[in-house]
Amino acid sequence: MSSTPSRGHQLDRVAVTGGTHGNELSGVYLVKHWLQNPSELQRGTFAATPFLANPKATKRCIRYLSQDLNRSFTRTFLTSKETQDGPYEVRQAQEINQLFGPKGSADAFDFIFDLHNTVSNMVACLILDSEENVFTMHMCHYIQKHTQGPCPIYLYGLPGQENYSLQSVAKNGLGLELGPQPHGVLRADVLSHMRALVACGLDFIDLFNQGTSFPAFDIVAYKIIEPMDFPQSPSGELLGFVHPQLQDKDFFPLKPGDPIFQLFSGEEIFYEGDATIYPAFINEAAYYEKGVAFYKMKKCTFSIPPLEAPEASAP
Amino acid sequence: MSSTPSRGHQLDRVAVTGGTHGNELSGVYLVKHWLQNPSELQRGTFAATPFLANPKATKRCIRYLSQDLNRSFTRTFLTSKETQDGPYEVRQAQEINQLFGPKGSADAFDFIFDLHNTVSNMVACLILDSEENVFTMHMCHYIQKHTQGPCPIYLYGLPGQENYSLQSVAKNGLGLELGPQPHGVLRADVLSHMRALVACGLDFIDLFNQGTSFPAFDIVAYKIIEPMDFPQSPSGELLGFVHPQLQDKDFFPLKPGDPIFQLFSGEEIFYEGDATIYPAFINEAAYYEKGVAFYKMKKCTFSIPPLEAPEASAP
Repeated sequence: MSSTPSRGHQLDRVAVTGGTHGNELSGVYLVKHWLQNPSELQRGTFAATPFLANPKATKRCIRYLSQDLNRSFTRTFLTSKETQDGPYEVRQAQEINQLFGPKGSADAFDFIFDLHNTVSNMVACLILDSEENVFTMHMCHYIQKHTQGPCPIYLYGLPGQENYSLQSVAKNGLGLELGPQPHGVLRADVLSHMRALVACGLDFIDLFNQGTSFPAFDIVAYKIIEPMDFPQSPSGELLGFVHPQLQDKDFFPLKPGDPIFQLFSGEEIFYEGDATIYPAFINEAAYYEKGVAFYKMKKCTFSIPPLEAPEASAP
Repeated sequence: MSSTPSRGHQLDRVAVTGGTHGNELSGVYLVKHWLQNPSELQRGTFAATPFLANPKATKRCIRYLSQDLNRSFTRTFLTSKETQDGPYEVRQAQEINQLFGPKGSADAFDFIFDLHNTVSNMVACLILDSEENVFTMHMCHYIQKHTQGPCPIYLYGLPGQENYSLQSVAKNGLGLELGPQPHGVLRADVLSHMRALVACGLDFIDLFNQGTSFPAFDIVAYKIIEPMDFPQSPSGELLGFVHPQLQDKDFFPLKPGDPIFQLFSGEEIFYEGDATIYPAFINEAAYYEKGVAFYKMKKCTFSIPPLEAPEASAP
């Protein structure tokens, strides 16, 4: 994903994708609604394109068929030739790359909002790869100021790791990760919250396109360190579960010595790290298959430079 | 399912089944734990047998492979001959009927606890077919008095309908339906609550076996009326979702004119019945495939006759 759009570049081509994971229903149903009634996605300077990213998984209300679509936007998968017999999500990633990319090219869409839900208590989490995405960091800041409730920023990029996500197809992008909501369920409160966040992000792009500059600011964000696995037997069976004192405490400080797991025997397991961390995606259903209980995050404060308005476009 | 065990009949053969739905993890992991460490299921007068009811669905962390196991204990399925090529859950139902039945026979187990979770806010719901099960109603009353938090009683039998559930294989049975917990997730609070309910039910059987009689009482229970479907298009697409004022209000009164749905357009839908009902299983993920938004229940008070202690068994 590139960083700040260069001065003078309006954002004309914007997409809103839902159903990247087929059982995360807020995005699925918002996109289905917007495909029928796109007016909510229109602004003065552009109209965003709604897109259902994984229709087969959506139809079956499962996360994916063959592999996680949101991990399938790597060079290896996007250039793989075995299209007809290969995994469905690889073919789907290539189609999305055709539609909204090609990734890394000048032809790529300007921005993608990718809509997700989690069973974890992540509230209205804003997900991007790095604080170096100045444009998206400004959008996050705008959303935090203009919507209700906390919107923690989650930076998922690791040094040297290729960006694998759907939103990486566009020049810039933002994942909206709203929870808690069980997978396969549509909660009114979560749906309306997601709707408000998308609307606010579109408003921000519209303001920028209209010539608004945004000043520099400092902002708190959480940067991924590494996953924390569940306690497991050598054969991979769970030996315990998230401690009741940690459950639902996403983005709260976890200090060395704090309890993190309880075993079925009743024994407690304590966090053994050297420093305070901020767990995220605590007890997310989709990560059980990986054995991941939560992600360790560090809390950082970043100074984001100003965002200059684009030059007025030719009439 | 028969009613009161006859006087003089101790309960010697008791089973605790989990994973009847493979993605309802409290029961799955409690049963797995008890298979390794059965001491929690032992009492002075008997030892309960833990059993994982749908191991293939459990392994894949899905509700079922071919059909809902907990709807597969009808005469038609239990006597079906197409065992090898037929649906997996039909074969599994027949095996369970061999192990803990045969259903309706003198050889059947005395009692089955069947462990379930729901994403709905059903708290610690106690499920049986009818208030005519005097023994199980006494157990419910005992559990309500000896555990913390509300334990609403849900009576699922409809007049003239054959009993289809796993617990119907035994002479008596009780379903424990704990929520809210997302499917595919293990929450510490829900797990420990379920553990306490099972322990309390086993204590009750032990007391009964030891010669305790229980006096008559009046008790509130909720009896099923019928399902309420989601608003849907002719092709079965959802047109809306559970109204935020109804969400999480399981077993609260719903009056004619109260809002029940919100459409994606923003329009509200109101309950049009003639009388106050008590919705249950509001917005349960597993019922989306049936288009069911909740079950309409009526609140009833029943007078339950005394339960006489069994005669002392021969030394």
